Amino acid sequence: MASIARSSLRMRSVTRMPTARTISTTPHFRAAAKPFFADEPAAPKLATAIPGPKNKAATAELDKVFDVRSLNMLTDYSKSIGNYIADLDGNVLLDVYAQIASIPVGYNNPHLTKVAQSPEMITSLINRPALGNFPSADWADILNTGILKVAPKGLNQVFTAMAGSDANETAYKAAFMYYRQLQRGGPEKEFTEEELKTTMTNQAPGSPQLSIMSFKSGFHGRLFGSLSTTRSKPIHKLDIPAFDWPQAPFPSLKYPLEEHAQENAQEEQRCLQETERLIKEWHNPVAAVVVEPIQSEGGDNHASPAFFRGLREITKRNNVLFIVDEVQTGVGATGKFWAHDHWNLETPPDMVTFSKKAQTAGYYYGNPALRPNKPYRQFNTWMGDPARALIFRGIIEEIERLNLVEHTAQTGDYLYSGLQRLAEKYPEHLQNLRGKGQGTFIAWDTPKRDEFLGKAKGVGVNIGGSGVNAVRLRPMLIFQQHHADILLESIEKIIKQL
Amino acid sequence: MASIARSSLRMRSVTRMPTARTISTTPHFRAAAKPFFADEPAAPKLATAIPGPKNKAATAELDKVFDVRSLNMLTDYSKSIGNYIADLDGNVLLDVYAQIASIPVGYNNPHLTKVAQSPEMITSLINRPALGNFPSADWADILNTGILKVAPKGLNQVFTAMAGSDANETAYKAAFMYYRQLQRGGPEKEFTEEELKTTMTNQAPGSPQLSIMSFKSGFHGRLFGSLSTTRSKPIHKLDIPAFDWPQAPFPSLKYPLEEHAQENAQEEQRCLQETERLIKEWHNPVAAVVVEPIQSEGGDNHASPAFFRGLREITKRNNVLFIVDEVQTGVGATGKFWAHDHWNLETPPDMVTFSKKAQTAGYYYGNPALRPNKPYRQFNTWMGDPARALIFRGIIEEIERLNLVEHTAQTGDYLYSGLQRLAEKYPEHLQNLRGKGQGTFIAWDTPKRDEFLGKAKGVGVNIGGSGVNAVRLRPMLIFQQHHADILLESIEKIIKQL
Repeated sequence: MASIARSSLRMRSVTRMPTARTISTTPHFRAAAKPFFADEPAAPKLATAIPGPKNKAATAELDKVFDVRSLNMLTDYSKSIGNYIADLDGNVLLDVYAQIASIPVGYNNPHLTKVAQSPEMITSLINRPALGNFPSADWADILNTGILKVAPKGLNQVFTAMAGSDANETAYKAAFMYYRQLQRGGPEKEFTEEELKTTMTNQAPGSPQLSIMSFKSGFHGRLFGSLSTTRSKPIHKLDIPAFDWPQAPFPSLKYPLEEHAQENAQEEQRCLQETERLIKEWHNPVAAVVVEPIQSEGGDNHASPAFFRGLREITKRNNVLFIVDEVQTGVGATGKFWAHDHWNLETPPDMVTFSKKAQTAGYYYGNPALRPNKPYRQFNTWMGDPARALIFRGIIEEIERLNLVEHTAQTGDYLYSGLQRLAEKYPEHLQNLRGKGQGTFIAWDTPKRDEFLGKAKGVGVNIGGSGVNAVRLRPMLIFQQHHADILLESIEKIIKQL
Repeated sequence: MASIARSSLRMRSVTRMPTARTISTTPHFRAAAKPFFADEPAAPKLATAIPGPKNKAATAELDKVFDVRSLNMLTDYSKSIGNYIADLDGNVLLDVYAQIASIPVGYNNPHLTKVAQSPEMITSLINRPALGNFPSADWADILNTGILKVAPKGLNQVFTAMAGSDANETAYKAAFMYYRQLQRGGPEKEFTEEELKTTMTNQAPGSPQLSIMSFKSGFHGRLFGSLSTTRSKPIHKLDIPAFDWPQAPFPSLKYPLEEHAQENAQEEQRCLQETERLIKEWHNPVAAVVVEPIQSEGGDNHASPAFFRGLREITKRNNVLFIVDEVQTGVGATGKFWAHDHWNLETPPDMVTFSKKAQTAGYYYGNPALRPNKPYRQFNTWMGDPARALIFRGIIEEIERLNLVEHTAQTGDYLYSGLQRLAEKYPEHLQNLRGKGQGTFIAWDTPKRDEFLGKAKGVGVNIGGSGVNAVRLRPMLIFQQHHADILLESIEKIIKQL
């Protein structure tokens, strides 16, 4: 393992001129841009069938103590670099899945290596604070130069968390407390004796039967509150008790969008109307609506900016909070830093949750009334992890230095054009291509999806699915045109094998 | 900040002989043991009233973006060392609260500094894996030499998590899946169409109305499932929807224990009977019982090993799982590595959850049937954090090198004796002293508790409370007799001010 730090240092010269080795040789899409990672391989490398013998043996070893049935590939991170992920058998794949959409600036990124070696990181790792009680003296600075530097427009405060699930759940808790505060008539109103008593046995009014509304096919996490808003697949939910919370319909759009404009607008209108009806009529009053800008686990389901603006209007009209779950869509992948930046909202969401590419988690908010009216209502021991907050700051620095949001918008357009050509050539294998103008956050449906994904490693790419039929692309923000060329070529190879 | 790493390196010689500066000058309890941290101050240092001017100014700055109403003290971790925590104004306090019981081997521990600088740590920080899909090649080794090296007797597998709340909630999920599997007749039985359909709208039978039983005054976390089992204080629960889950009575013991043996045994018997009645009769069937070995947030409430053995018997007799929540009690503080080691159980708990002093989290289990019958049922993107798992491994190495569990048992006895003397001298201020033979996990009740805690910093100690009336001691495992002397002296000083 000692070679990692050294190899990371070697990669420091990220602006080195491209060499023959780093330029794609695919004839149709020759790319001229400098590679961000000069030492990246020029192409995937296949050494064995995947999984190879070393991977199989190591997986059997891990299986003794850790459930490996969801294992995709044991990874040699010391040999992974930039957009390329390596296994134990010498296979090196172009990775457009990126740890379930959570690696933004490449494996063994040299700048992050420096962040990891910094004194701030060491102290954060060895002196882990209870952030609500004993934050470090520089916590405000870490927030202001990191997490809050990229806060969505209109939101200037944050409650930090550990991962997407608890980011969403703490946002839900803030919504419930806010809702009850409005009902009571303000933050200065005291709890009743009955509330104080009933909450200790989980009964109303102290533990009220309120709800969070989410959308069909949505995914918001897998703990008990977040799972109650998750509607992706039965396997995510079966056997786990859930709250009796409402599910609104999410628009089912037809593609290509330009050929179904009127139909799609009507579908979105139908969903909005039903959403508002449910808010008004659901037996457990709705404190907030949570929605993903693009339903990411549930099948890469998109809706138009007009739909989301309509949703914002409905929530305002009905005095429920509007929570945008940017756990998977946030941090640049859609060609904007936050996917909801595409919507041109008149008023910002009440809360925006984040995780994955941020490598840390939490929810942003702007309205000071969303701070609960007393201390210790929104609290836990760690309330996040400063070590991971420092990594996010390093990621933001890389994004700014390399202009990676704009870059991803452009690379996404290039990739989308290439996929459009493939869709014209293989219409049965690339259906409902979607994500135009959404950076590299692109997906399509294919009837032989699982077979498609199964063959991907054999042509040198690591690629994931979403929903039942979708192939989802989740490249890193350092994905470039020459990577897109390799990916397009690989997709065609897979299709030819189906 | 650059000085941290250097000052950490200076502390490497932890076996250096004690100097006059590091030996307590308290006359009654002169200690002879070598200090673990040679550069620790010999005593607390008070430079200003607390909070001092720099702390106040920095807190106001942080308040702009982060809720500071639960803030105890902004901390200068670069100046904190061993058992001593420093603020921005030059105050250095003996810390027996330790980030809510979560720092085990001291601030700026030299061995952890080395771990933080290791190549494994750097790759874990910058190449964060989705552990269920793409674990690193050495993940099995990291588990086997770390988390699993200290697995409770009889439990040899782990599901890793991020913090105490999700450690408990994933354990609850495993319990629900196991319970339904038994009902169905085995792991090979398929879900019914009705289950697959109803779970998508959060309804039974797919989302069954099962429950987890917890105890009055218990604390198990603050997300929606864990909060439904938390019964500590209304402020932790108010306004948050909760599941209709049962609450069993926890024994209310009288102290000193030896004077109330029969009465306490009867009380425990009463609670066990009521627990079993609730398991049999609660309208939402009980899949598991969760209990803390010592109720830590709820007031440091103890029960006897016989009570817990009885509880284990009841759960077996009624086919419900027995989950022991060792989030606060685990990792040595009670003078055993796991507090439930004190019980001499005939069969191990079904699951044991951990976090805090482990600096990472998860649940241990032994029965392979607790792995859900299909992949992706117990899953999330990160499933923990290898960086924090490496820190836990370093902590375990320190615990072994310095024999800190045995050490804590001995120091605890010494501290308890001193407190007994104080309780005899000030019976009105030290009531119900408890934690004898439980390492340094000691508490007592005092009628002026909040006043007591408020004055502690003024005499140079950082100390926390639990429940309504309790002062709880949560020193680190490197807390030594000379620290106990200072603490005892400080407690007496506070009492004299009340």
